[in-house]
Amino acid sequence: MAKLNENFDKLTAGYLFPEISKRVKTFLENNKGVSIIRLGIGNTTEPLAPVVIEALHNGVDKLSKVDTYTGYGDDSTIYAIKDFREALATYYNKLGAKIELDEIFISDGAKSDLGNIPSIFSQDSIIAVQDPTYPAYVDVAVISGKTGKSTGQQYERIVYMPCGEENNFFPEPPTQKADLIFLCSPNNPTGAVATKEQLKKFVDYAKKNQAIIIFDAAYNWFISDPALPKSIYEIEGAKECAIEINSFSKFAGFTGVRLGWSIVPKTLVTQDSSPGKINSIWNRRQCTMFNGASNIVQEGGLVALSEKGLAENQQIIDYYMNNARTIRKALEEKGFKVFGGTNAPYLWVKTPNGMKSWDFFDKMLSEAKVVITPGSGFGPSGEGYFRVSSFGHKENVAKAIESIKKNLKL
Amino acid sequence: MAKLNENFDKLTAGYLFPEISKRVKTFLENNKGVSIIRLGIGNTTEPLAPVVIEALHNGVDKLSKVDTYTGYGDDSTIYAIKDFREALATYYNKLGAKIELDEIFISDGAKSDLGNIPSIFSQDSIIAVQDPTYPAYVDVAVISGKTGKSTGQQYERIVYMPCGEENNFFPEPPTQKADLIFLCSPNNPTGAVATKEQLKKFVDYAKKNQAIIIFDAAYNWFISDPALPKSIYEIEGAKECAIEINSFSKFAGFTGVRLGWSIVPKTLVTQDSSPGKINSIWNRRQCTMFNGASNIVQEGGLVALSEKGLAENQQIIDYYMNNARTIRKALEEKGFKVFGGTNAPYLWVKTPNGMKSWDFFDKMLSEAKVVITPGSGFGPSGEGYFRVSSFGHKENVAKAIESIKKNLKL
Repeated sequence: MAKLNENFDKLTAGYLFPEISKRVKTFLENNKGVSIIRLGIGNTTEPLAPVVIEALHNGVDKLSKVDTYTGYGDDSTIYAIKDFREALATYYNKLGAKIELDEIFISDGAKSDLGNIPSIFSQDSIIAVQDPTYPAYVDVAVISGKTGKSTGQQYERIVYMPCGEENNFFPEPPTQKADLIFLCSPNNPTGAVATKEQLKKFVDYAKKNQAIIIFDAAYNWFISDPALPKSIYEIEGAKECAIEINSFSKFAGFTGVRLGWSIVPKTLVTQDSSPGKINSIWNRRQCTMFNGASNIVQEGGLVALSEKGLAENQQIIDYYMNNARTIRKALEEKGFKVFGGTNAPYLWVKTPNGMKSWDFFDKMLSEAKVVITPGSGFGPSGEGYFRVSSFGHKENVAKAIESIKKNLKL
Repeated sequence: MAKLNENFDKLTAGYLFPEISKRVKTFLENNKGVSIIRLGIGNTTEPLAPVVIEALHNGVDKLSKVDTYTGYGDDSTIYAIKDFREALATYYNKLGAKIELDEIFISDGAKSDLGNIPSIFSQDSIIAVQDPTYPAYVDVAVISGKTGKSTGQQYERIVYMPCGEENNFFPEPPTQKADLIFLCSPNNPTGAVATKEQLKKFVDYAKKNQAIIIFDAAYNWFISDPALPKSIYEIEGAKECAIEINSFSKFAGFTGVRLGWSIVPKTLVTQDSSPGKINSIWNRRQCTMFNGASNIVQEGGLVALSEKGLAENQQIIDYYMNNARTIRKALEEKGFKVFGGTNAPYLWVKTPNGMKSWDFFDKMLSEAKVVITPGSGFGPSGEGYFRVSSFGHKENVAKAIESIKKNLKL
């Protein structure tokens, strides 16, 4: 008799974004004809860079001819088109980090890797997360049975590292035991970026405690301050304790196109794994349960990493960061206290008068017809905040701001 | 202190295909200048259908314009482009099966879904597999901790259902308890196709024992005999006990392009899950840990399902099946006993004089310079057989056959 994985029943609520979709849908059903503006989800809206479009067409054309057609790659490793791993190694080299080609695993995006990498670690691993945090880190831990039950806002056996105004939204390493530490910088949702000194403390903690850091760098493309690290491998010793995950979603507008990568260094060590073992186990997992990212899509990704690709994509990043500045200015003028949004596409904003996040979500939706993301959806320390995304057409951002100015009653 | 998932250490050998790659690599290193011909891996070799190429270009073009650009889909369900679910529902309708749109989950290919679907079921599930079978079913069960340790050729807590000449390579339902039953028809590796009567027995077993069948239909496009079922949903009652997984890899040459789908009916029931629950849990898993298949690729898939797309792809399927006939004839003339290859792209062949599969693999490689797949890599009952794939250019197939005729010493 088949039984379900009982851990799914421990999940306290729908995954955050589906829950938002549901509330918006209900609102629209009850308010026929009303149009809303979304500043909620981090969904890219601007067309791909011309040079990437051209490369994707070339990728398609290759599949139309017998000489250039490709199917599965070599089965001993996850498929990467020619020169792709080299391009990523060059990207790291520019940041001062030396990454070997067989430490690079191409994926269909950060979400899959974030979901699957924990499965190569022991069931009794203690997971630490920034609080607030991207909710999938926690949900994945719950689903895979690595947590206890929910105690309301938190789960047993997860170490929450509170991030608030008092620590500039980046935590100190935990005082308790933690085995897998998820760090996201620039952070989703707070927009805070860790300094080298802050990351160094985590690397030291991880090395001392043989913990593994899973570093989500998907938003690093939005860092303009040259002093801030774009990769954890800019920190000495990180290659012995950190896995890094990145994506083409936000950098090159590949949210629907799907492409990402992970770095699993061969130098990672823990007590039960000699150098190379974690790398080879991740390779085994991927070769058994994944068949690589689309060959067409990889052609686009490769060119996105070229000089021309980087330059064209920078213009799109600048476009979104312009939105961020516009939103910040308007919200501050309205009297909000705003964080983030300078080296990250997200603004993290205090609700007025200590309102609960979901109450303010409903108020913003019903009064200004603007969809934001309730901070409490990212963890208990997100209560009393909301996230605003700068992804969107500037015309829509302007409309949203106009409506907030005019219709939101504070 | 991070520890590894100890189940990886239970895996007795490298995943089959990487192991083949390794042996071939070693052979080539020791035999400089020698060229080999691959009839091993089921990797497509022929260019995509023209109508699919056109659709993929259109998919790329959509991303170049602000009005047609798309990013993430609606977060409450896995992204499918407009009309895609409808096209798949129509496909099932033609087979006489009624599938609801929210029972269809678009994926990046069958391998991912086969790897991930078991995770929504309880850790203590007993898995049953055809023996021989596609090795990933077993490896996934091992990695996820659903098996005991290896006892040489088998794992504890897996029910092996032997398939041999005596049962025309399709088993009877097990006499022991099994919770998740993997069935693959047309079968990889034997090329055997289950009849409606044979599938009915499994549906009856599953309903009686509240087991779930995971039906891998990725090769159903190669069935030409109209009496043979292409979907398990052609069997009455299957929607109450079976999940079906399919792929564009073999049908449309998408092995490198990546696209597939799974059907998780809302009517599935087990003792601890009311109707709709398994469907909603799979949706939750996918929304948390996956971001959908590439929008570009989906445009190609949608057109592959159109009348024109089906007709053009049929020509490619005919091409491969022509290879299958050529290979069968040659092997039979050489004195081999050959099974499969009439409604499936794989031929399943007895080794001469009861040779061990890997010994014959080495012999075929060193004498004929042809790569085949050793049957024992698919399970203990595969010992003494080898698999030949009909995927390949016909010129290469001709060369391989010529070399086998001339150089293989029997």
